[in-house]
Amino acid sequence: MISYSEGLAKILSFSKNHTFESIPLKLSDGRILAEEIRADRDYPPFNRSAMDGFAISSSEFSENKIYHYNRELPAGSNFLLEKGEEAIRIMTGAPVPLGLDVVIKIEDSLLSEDDRGNKQVSFSLKNVRPWQNIARKGEDLHKGDSILFPGHTLGTSEISILASLGKNLVSVVTLPKIQIISTGNEIVPIDRTPLDWQIRDSNSYTISSILSKYKIVPESVKNIPDEESLLTEAISKGLESDILILSGGVSMGSMDLVPSVLQKLGVELVFHKVGIKPGKPIWFGKRGNTIVFGMPGNPFSVQICSRIFLEPFLRASMGQKQIPAMRLPILGARNKKGSLTEFFPVRLETKDKTYLSAVSFNGSGDIRAGLSSNGLAVHPADSEQIQDGDWIEFLPW
Amino acid sequence: MISYSEGLAKILSFSKNHTFESIPLKLSDGRILAEEIRADRDYPPFNRSAMDGFAISSSEFSENKIYHYNRELPAGSNFLLEKGEEAIRIMTGAPVPLGLDVVIKIEDSLLSEDDRGNKQVSFSLKNVRPWQNIARKGEDLHKGDSILFPGHTLGTSEISILASLGKNLVSVVTLPKIQIISTGNEIVPIDRTPLDWQIRDSNSYTISSILSKYKIVPESVKNIPDEESLLTEAISKGLESDILILSGGVSMGSMDLVPSVLQKLGVELVFHKVGIKPGKPIWFGKRGNTIVFGMPGNPFSVQICSRIFLEPFLRASMGQKQIPAMRLPILGARNKKGSLTEFFPVRLETKDKTYLSAVSFNGSGDIRAGLSSNGLAVHPADSEQIQDGDWIEFLPW
Repeated sequence: MISYSEGLAKILSFSKNHTFESIPLKLSDGRILAEEIRADRDYPPFNRSAMDGFAISSSEFSENKIYHYNRELPAGSNFLLEKGEEAIRIMTGAPVPLGLDVVIKIEDSLLSEDDRGNKQVSFSLKNVRPWQNIARKGEDLHKGDSILFPGHTLGTSEISILASLGKNLVSVVTLPKIQIISTGNEIVPIDRTPLDWQIRDSNSYTISSILSKYKIVPESVKNIPDEESLLTEAISKGLESDILILSGGVSMGSMDLVPSVLQKLGVELVFHKVGIKPGKPIWFGKRGNTIVFGMPGNPFSVQICSRIFLEPFLRASMGQKQIPAMRLPILGARNKKGSLTEFFPVRLETKDKTYLSAVSFNGSGDIRAGLSSNGLAVHPADSEQIQDGDWIEFLPW
Repeated sequence: MISYSEGLAKILSFSKNHTFESIPLKLSDGRILAEEIRADRDYPPFNRSAMDGFAISSSEFSENKIYHYNRELPAGSNFLLEKGEEAIRIMTGAPVPLGLDVVIKIEDSLLSEDDRGNKQVSFSLKNVRPWQNIARKGEDLHKGDSILFPGHTLGTSEISILASLGKNLVSVVTLPKIQIISTGNEIVPIDRTPLDWQIRDSNSYTISSILSKYKIVPESVKNIPDEESLLTEAISKGLESDILILSGGVSMGSMDLVPSVLQKLGVELVFHKVGIKPGKPIWFGKRGNTIVFGMPGNPFSVQICSRIFLEPFLRASMGQKQIPAMRLPILGARNKKGSLTEFFPVRLETKDKTYLSAVSFNGSGDIRAGLSSNGLAVHPADSEQIQDGDWIEFLPW
């Protein structure tokens, strides 16, 4: 049996080349960028007033000086300074006219009129410094600067930048085609009433919910009983997609047909069983370009295997960076027997600090196991006891 | 000027009653539950074998005893024990027959045959305890137990449970109708080439991206120049929705028409300006059942105001619990002048512990400001310096 880190390394070694597609920016939330993005011009594109107030020249400033002004410059307009023009009323976001290098905010300005009714202003400041309250052309980015790279996940910050740069269409990684098969005679679809010794198929919903984080909608979702001919037919069809995700049928039972059907269909076993709890019976293999995850049947095992194996694989196969585990202090000690790496659900609890707090559950078959949890904490294979206050790995959902 | 916490409290006091709708479970990711969910039966629904192995009776166990067995019980089937039947070959997930209370895993079983070729088994165990390797009927949940409540966000754990309970259709909170208007003469739609002193409308993309976290698609998105008649028309239309979100035009400039147009249209001002940086000029008001957010024009101010005011409002108005800020240690000291609460972008950095690390940026007009950040840290109004290692508030994006 291989260890958690060995299993993860093997899974990541099979991540594939991906293809690209161009989509509207407004549909790109959560997708993975497939192109390098460079600044189309300097940012700010002009010397931009950061305040509402008056633009003047620092070299002509003196305390208590009275400036005549006439014109006002709103954002979205531009003009050149006229001969003898000393100050300009300027709005936030407007371009500072050539020759001026200071903006004094309106709150520091004393407005008045001279004898002839001409507008004038003085400032309640002792001194000014060049470029105060001005965002200078190119101070954030120069034209041609690289800003975003392939593999970047498009979240709010990235989409905001792409909009500023005018990327109406953006090149993103094509989503993998995925099929899901829940196996087991005891499984019925959720819209049917189970017999006393049957249960409903929650696993395909768990997996679909996790795929939705990556904007992936499975091509098909099936419930197949433990019958070799039906499994063979469904798995054959599933092997036409990029990723086939099965749940159930990979334990030690004589009815656990999944591994034998997979191998008859030419799927090469990469590993079966990993030293983790829950989730130990996980089966992983490939045929050609198709990757096969055989998850255990218990609902919490499926949620854990999806988080610790399927998600890293999806990220890698779409060229996305892995998200490193966080490390936070845990409330209370935890003991472990045996040599498996254990994953347990935790809730974030913030007092003076943010702590992890274990959420109790009755094992991987407990349908409530993940409820009220913010993610999984890791009890390392070689550690018998986690002490109260230890900083341990945390994988948010 | 009111403080951040006063502003937030005022905003939350206006959260409204919501309505409900029934949707398919498979479309419910990220939606807010609107009904109480109870267990439809006991969970587990039967005494479920947690292992592949043999079911026996604890009262008839003795070390080295040889058991005859004949039948095997897969998951999804059920049978009653026959007279004299001592052991049953049982699969993970199968119901343990009445009268048996122990499952011994296959790895601890020694299979053989007697002289007549009958199947027999003994176990490499010194003793057994009642109910070992069996998940007992009702040990997780009793029929009728409350599991989920209105206001619960539907994530993977919740959807998995709802599937187990057969909730093919689920009652969720109706999404608010939202319109977005980006104002300003300097703003052009992202598919047009801006003049040197113009910029593209990123704010409506920023806001739409944040709304998408709540599965909300805005009813309309408009760019409107600083012209009173056009603004009046667009805002009138916008006031027909539940929430109108404007950006730009709320600062001190004489061109900042938004507050005056809003007030002419009968929108009641709740507050204008909050003691925060960036985002100070935020305007908030209401008319009848419509809530109006007037955000500043700078892109990072919009992202911050959306995170600290709009999102809490959305959560409250959909009956969802607020997510408390986390508290994590920060790398490096930070100084602040003035009495505003400052929000600054931070990246999570994990070594032996997870730290916050400030991401540098050139102010709220810097289009890169949010990039590479995982969220916002808070520099409290009354604190001049944050020390290296202080535990400070962190709001993940």
